[in-house]
This record gives sequence, C-alpha cells and structure tokens, in this order.
Amino acid sequence: MSTKPTPLSGFPELLPEQRFVEQQVIDSLRRTFELHGFAGIETRAVEPMDQLLRKGETSKEVYVLRRLQEADSGTDSGIGLHFDLTVPFARYVLENAGKLEFPFRRYQVQKAWRGERPQEGRYREFTQADIDVVMKDELPFHFDVEVARVMAEALSALPLPPLRLRVNNRKLIEGFYRGLGAADPQAVITIIDKLDKLPEEQVAALLGSDAGLDGDQVRQCLALARITTTDSSFVERVRELGVEHELLDTGLAELAAVVDGCADVRSDRFEVEASLSLARGLDYYTGTVFEIHMVGFEFLKSVGGGGRYDALASDGRSTYPGVGISFGISRTLVPLMSRGLLAADRKVPSVVLVALVDEDSRSASDAIASALRARGIPCEVAAAAQKFGKQIRYAERRGIPYVWFPGADGDQVKDIRSGDQVAADPASWAPPSEDLRPQVVATSNDEEQK
Amino acid sequence: MSTKPTPLSGFPELLPEQRFVEQQVIDSLRRTFELHGFAGIETRAVEPMDQLLRKGETSKEVYVLRRLQEADSGTDSGIGLHFDLTVPFARYVLENAGKLEFPFRRYQVQKAWRGERPQEGRYREFTQADIDVVMKDELPFHFDVEVARVMAEALSALPLPPLRLRVNNRKLIEGFYRGLGAADPQAVITIIDKLDKLPEEQVAALLGSDAGLDGDQVRQCLALARITTTDSSFVERVRELGVEHELLDTGLAELAAVVDGCADVRSDRFEVEASLSLARGLDYYTGTVFEIHMVGFEFLKSVGGGGRYDALASDGRSTYPGVGISFGISRTLVPLMSRGLLAADRKVPSVVLVALVDEDSRSASDAIASALRARGIPCEVAAAAQKFGKQIRYAERRGIPYVWFPGADGDQVKDIRSGDQVAADPASWAPPSEDLRPQVVATSNDEEQK
Repeated sequence: MSTKPTPLSGFPELLPEQRFVEQQVIDSLRRTFELHGFAGIETRAVEPMDQLLRKGETSKEVYVLRRLQEADSGTDSGIGLHFDLTVPFARYVLENAGKLEFPFRRYQVQKAWRGERPQEGRYREFTQADIDVVMKDELPFHFDVEVARVMAEALSALPLPPLRLRVNNRKLIEGFYRGLGAADPQAVITIIDKLDKLPEEQVAALLGSDAGLDGDQVRQCLALARITTTDSSFVERVRELGVEHELLDTGLAELAAVVDGCADVRSDRFEVEASLSLARGLDYYTGTVFEIHMVGFEFLKSVGGGGRYDALASDGRSTYPGVGISFGISRTLVPLMSRGLLAADRKVPSVVLVALVDEDSRSASDAIASALRARGIPCEVAAAAQKFGKQIRYAERRGIPYVWFPGADGDQVKDIRSGDQVAADPASWAPPSEDLRPQVVATSNDEEQK
Repeated sequence: MSTKPTPLSGFPELLPEQRFVEQQVIDSLRRTFELHGFAGIETRAVEPMDQLLRKGETSKEVYVLRRLQEADSGTDSGIGLHFDLTVPFARYVLENAGKLEFPFRRYQVQKAWRGERPQEGRYREFTQADIDVVMKDELPFHFDVEVARVMAEALSALPLPPLRLRVNNRKLIEGFYRGLGAADPQAVITIIDKLDKLPEEQVAALLGSDAGLDGDQVRQCLALARITTTDSSFVERVRELGVEHELLDTGLAELAAVVDGCADVRSDRFEVEASLSLARGLDYYTGTVFEIHMVGFEFLKSVGGGGRYDALASDGRSTYPGVGISFGISRTLVPLMSRGLLAADRKVPSVVLVALVDEDSRSASDAIASALRARGIPCEVAAAAQKFGKQIRYAERRGIPYVWFPGADGDQVKDIRSGDQVAADPASWAPPSEDLRPQVVATSNDEEQK
C-alpha cells in the first residue's frame, strides 16, 4: 500500500475518542434494557435473500453476497446482509420458538447495511438499538406501554441533544376516518403521512382527489392531524371534533395509556408527545406507532421508530404479535460527531501516565501501574524515558489528566490540568470518580453557532 | 413465511442464555484492555477488494458484495467483507495517522467473515478480540512484553477451560538455523511449522530433501523444536545444543523477557509456555510469535495468535511496526456452548419477578418494579394475573430466582430455589450480589463425560 487510503462514502468510522462515546451510549442503553428484564441477542449479519425480499420496497437496498471462489460461475450465495434488525429477529423467533420463553423481551444492538445513496444521517453501514416484546398468539396491550416507557427511560439517559418520542395509534386514526365516513381509510392514512413532506394545501387536495373525501371530511382530517399534546389532553380535543367510532374509542384509550405511562420520564432533555399526524407510512403496524426525533436536528427526519405488529412472525401454525422500537445510534451520533459537537475528553482510557525515570527502571514503573490497575484505575507507562516535560506533553496530547512520578523518596502524582502535585502511594491513591473514565463532552448546536 | 426457518451452516447464533455469556466474556476482555490504556475502535465491515486480496492465500475466502439494484450489469461493488481485523486496522492506521497518537494501543472486538467450509470452531461468521500496539517508524521491544501480558491477564479472567499462551521468537529460530549453517532458514521455518500436522520422521525427511540440511543439522533442528518450558529455562536448553549466532542471542533474550513478563499471571487456569516449534507459517512476523490453545480442546488447533510485524502498515513515506494478538471468541465459545458446557443460569436479566395480584393492580406492581430498578435491581412484572403458583412457575422457567408478592399488609419476597419467604420493602431489599446478574455456569469436559 503506497498511498493514503480514503474513506468509503456511507461507511463512517470513528476515532477512538468518538468510539468511546458510542460505546458509552450502547452501555447505557443496555443497562436500562436489562433493568427492565430485556435479554440481549445478536443475529447473524446475513439472511437468505427470500427473507430479505419479502417486503418489496426495500429490495433495492440489499447487499448480496458472493464467495470470490464462485467468481467464474457468477452465482450469488443466496444470502445478503440484513437491512434492519426486525426481519432477522422475526426469523430468529420462529427458528427458536421451542427454546424461547414468551413473552420474549429482547434487545439487539447491531449493525445493518443498505446500499442506498449516502447522505448525512443515512449510511450504508449503521448501528441501531432495537427492543421488542413478542408473544405467542396474543400480546396484551400493556406491553405497548412498557416498550414506550423502557425506550423513553433509555433515551432520556443518553448524553445527546433533547430527544422527542412521538406516539400515535393506527386504531385512533383509522377509527376517526371510518367515523367520518371515509370509504378507504388506508388511502387517507397514506396521504396524511405526507404532511411532513408536502404543504397542507397539497395534502388537502390529495385527500379530495385520491381518497374521495369531501371538503368537510378533509377539514376534519387535517384538524385531527394538527393535534399534538404532551399529555393525554388530546382525548378532549379529538372529542371536540364530534366524530364517533368504536375503533376511535379504543385508539384514544390506548394512546392515552402510552402517553400517561411515560409521564414521569419527561424532562428538559426528553419529550413524549401524542402526535396525531403520525402514521408511519407503509409499515404493517396495527395499533401504537412510534417515531423518535432529535430536537434541533429535524433535517435528519426520524432517528428511530416502531410500533405494534399483530403478526411480527408466523410459521403457519402460530402467529407471534410484537411491539417494539428501534433507535438509530449511527443516525444520531455520527452527525453530532462530524460537527464536533460530541466527543470524549481523552483519546485513551488511561487516567494516569506513569512516568519513566530511565529504561532500566521500567519494571518499577510497571509495578506502580499494576498496583493502580489492581484497584480499577486504568493507566499506562510512558513509552520512552524522555525528559519529564516531554512525558507530560505526551499525557497532554492524549488528554490523560494525571502523571505519576516514581521517586526514590516516595512517589508524586501531578494533575496536569491544575498543576497540583502531591505525594501519593499506588496502593491507596485514587482519582476523583469523575476522572476515572473519559467524560463525554457534548456541545449544543446553539453554542457552536455563536 | 409458512415453514420454520433452518439454521445457516457456518453462521452460529446464540440463545439469550448463551449470548449473555458471550457478552460477559467481551465485557471482561474490554475491562482488562482498558485498564491497560488500550482504546476501543471498530472498523467498517467492508474493505476495497484490492486491500483484501493483498495476501494471496486468503483470497478464496472473501465474501464480495453486490448491490441488488446492480443485478443487470452483474458488476460487484468493489468491496468485500473483512476476513480478519488486522487488514482493516492497518488501513485505519494509515487513513487516520494524522489524528492518532503513537504508540497507539487499540483493542477491537468485531465480527469477521470467511467463505470457507464450515466445521466445528471454524465459522463463516465469527467474533474475535484483537489487541495491537502500533508505532510510527520504530516500536521498542518492551511492547512485545506488554501485549503478551495484557492478553494473558485478559484471558486468565475468562470463565473458560484453561487456556495456554504459546510464545516463540522468529529471530531465535532463524538465528539458530543460520548458526547451524542452513542455506535457506525460511524454508526450514516453513517445514518445522508442519510439526503439528505431520509425524516427526516426515518433517525430518523434508528438512533433508527440501531445505538441504544434513543429518546432524536435522537432528539439531528437531531438538530445538522439542524444547517447551513454562519459564525461561529454555535458554539454558538451547545453549546446551551449542549453536551460536547473534540473532539467536537476541531472540533468546526477547523470548525470555516475554515469558518472564507473564510469570505472575500463571495459574491453574492459564499457562504461558515458550514453545520453540512455533513458527506461525506464512505470516509476516519478524520477532515474537504467539498462539493460544484451549486445554482439552486441542482439536480446535489454535484459538488465537499473533506476533510482531515490522511493517504492519506503510504508506510509502512512513512505516508502522506493530505487535498484537487476536483471540477467537466464537472459536472458543460456540463449541463449548453447543456441547452444553457453558451457559448462564437464567434466560433473562431479571433477578425478581414482581407478581400481579390482578390486572387492576398492575400499576402497583409496576411501582414496586420501578423502586427496585432505581436501585439497580433488574426485574420484570408478571405478564398476566394468573394464580401465584403459575406465576412462580413462570419465574422458574426463566431461572428468575425471586418472586415478589405485593400485599395490602406489606410485601413479601420468596427465593423460589430455597422456598424462603420474607417480608420486604422495595425501597431497601436487595438480593445477594451473586444473584444480581445471571451467573456463568461452566461444566468441564471431564465432568460431562462421567
């Protein structure tokens, strides 16, 4: 290799100080998911092509695999890389149904691949975190509330700009459209779903031309879509529109339960919102639907989503309903990192650089490092016995906060940020707990722009 | 999907109670690597084909990617899945050299893919954990000792059958062969490397026919290869063979330093061994070489390996020497799991199942669960208000050790293993710390066979 390699578009990679943040985010999500009894699994990266192509609309994005030794025949191996974690999870549930206990709560943090045109927030390789609860035959509604709450708790703990969990319910909107007398509620859903891309007048026109609604029906549909509340007061506002339908009643009760169930997770860093325009397009959701947005980064569109499927998987004999939410880790982190808004405050896990007096005393410096590690303090020994000033700059360049000086009359440790230097014993000294691991430094977009 | 999907040969997947063990192993490795100042990175799953094909011998195993929408033209995308973590790491170092600090200590735990014929311990998709130290221009020898020691500490902490780190040094054997007067030391290395596959007589014959050694030289080479010690006493045994060469002296000193550097990590679960037959075949190692074996599972051959490269990467202007070791996570765990020798003692992270008196009191049970989670105790609420006997069996099937009964006169918690039931307050009760997370249950191969 004689020239510097260049990045591959759509395959973002992180520097160590960035990967540290991603790892912290994943660890934090895992911790919340496990506190709620969700078990972690991974699925293989590949699925048979017939599994991947079941949903027509994503077929163009699949990466097909071919073994190089099969080059002459030009045949594919019949497998491709998964483009989400839902298709493999559904297959995993069917394949292992006899060995799993239902309800099966699982989380899965893995990469997925799509061959689409790369743009900011849309990558060809990306990491996402999914939670789902899946049951055999019937899945009680309270799991919708649980899944919303678990993801809300998990997201609210992340070192990110404020996130917003938008929730709606397909029964609510379908019931409303039926109560209104719409002949094809599905067509109305598909058109209303365009509200985040098209101006309201254009959506109104489509509701007339393509869904056959009259002017009054169109006005009612748009009035419903405009309702957005951060508590269950949306129920009253829908009632004021005067539409009646049994399915609408069910949908209102379900949505209110989800929004109320997340009430005490709300903070200035996390919002839950009943958003009655949300439909989640063509996906096969049958009740609750979710979407996640990052406040101040609306250009990314949704950074996650999900909902309830009445048939996540089916093997002909049994049906497995599920409810789940997916959160885009690369989708949120990579844009923040590439703008310099998110990184760790050091490039290495080490809290301490143990200085080296001379090469002959390396074993003495190693012994100090071992004593610190035995008490859980990450550290490294200087690579070379340079002048102490150079060793301090070595620590500075990496963001290591402390330099340890071995001494014949006792050791000293220096906080190179403050310059404070004190006598210290490797068997008892410890840094303040906030220094023990690299800290995530998040700069808000506003601050950056000043 | 109307039939049960079947597993894909060579793409092992784990059940939740198995994945938990894999995650514990990865967490344990990470912890040790970070204590030693190694920074974690991930590289993208794909590399340009010209990168992947630089080493001819692996070319047949690469999975090439093609975007499905490019089907008509039949052209590949020019990228393939990486087959190890060394090729992508070398590329990452060159690509980011200006942003990295050297020496760069990195660990990387990721999947890799090879299209070879699947067999036990050899998978088409597998996870491995690599550590490397890479430097610009020159890498002092003490990093060989460091890398050996870090991997030794990391491996000795794993819940696995005893592992053995075998170490040798290319300078030692090349110097010995040169001192002996071998015309082509490289040919001798290649033949000696076959000792774990061929009987000694056949290797002896090859040393004569293919490396041009006389009978005395052959005897000396085989005598060297037979030397195996668990401390630096190999130095004396090599000296007794009476061969002299400057390169041999350097190699002996280096190998002794590595073996001595790992001395205090030795235990009945972890061995370090100077093994003078080890050569690591065709790889481009220039000094220290490593191989990892799992005791009692010799049929797996090596479960890891590595060594020093004087040119891990080069961009024409600068050369980046490195030293590292790779450990096969799937290679060790999957065979143990498929034999039932390794699993967690429960299928879910939950320590407690909070029972449900009736569906109307779900919020009361949820509140108990929240109080427990707030203190770091993973738990779940029963899915349905069945009879308590059924709820206890629900916990049993998952391996959840405690069932919590909400009561009007105060709550009770039952250890369903012992049957002990006591009054408890969700604001203060805690399980013994060993129950807090699922425990890894490792059965030895011997016990299993009884």
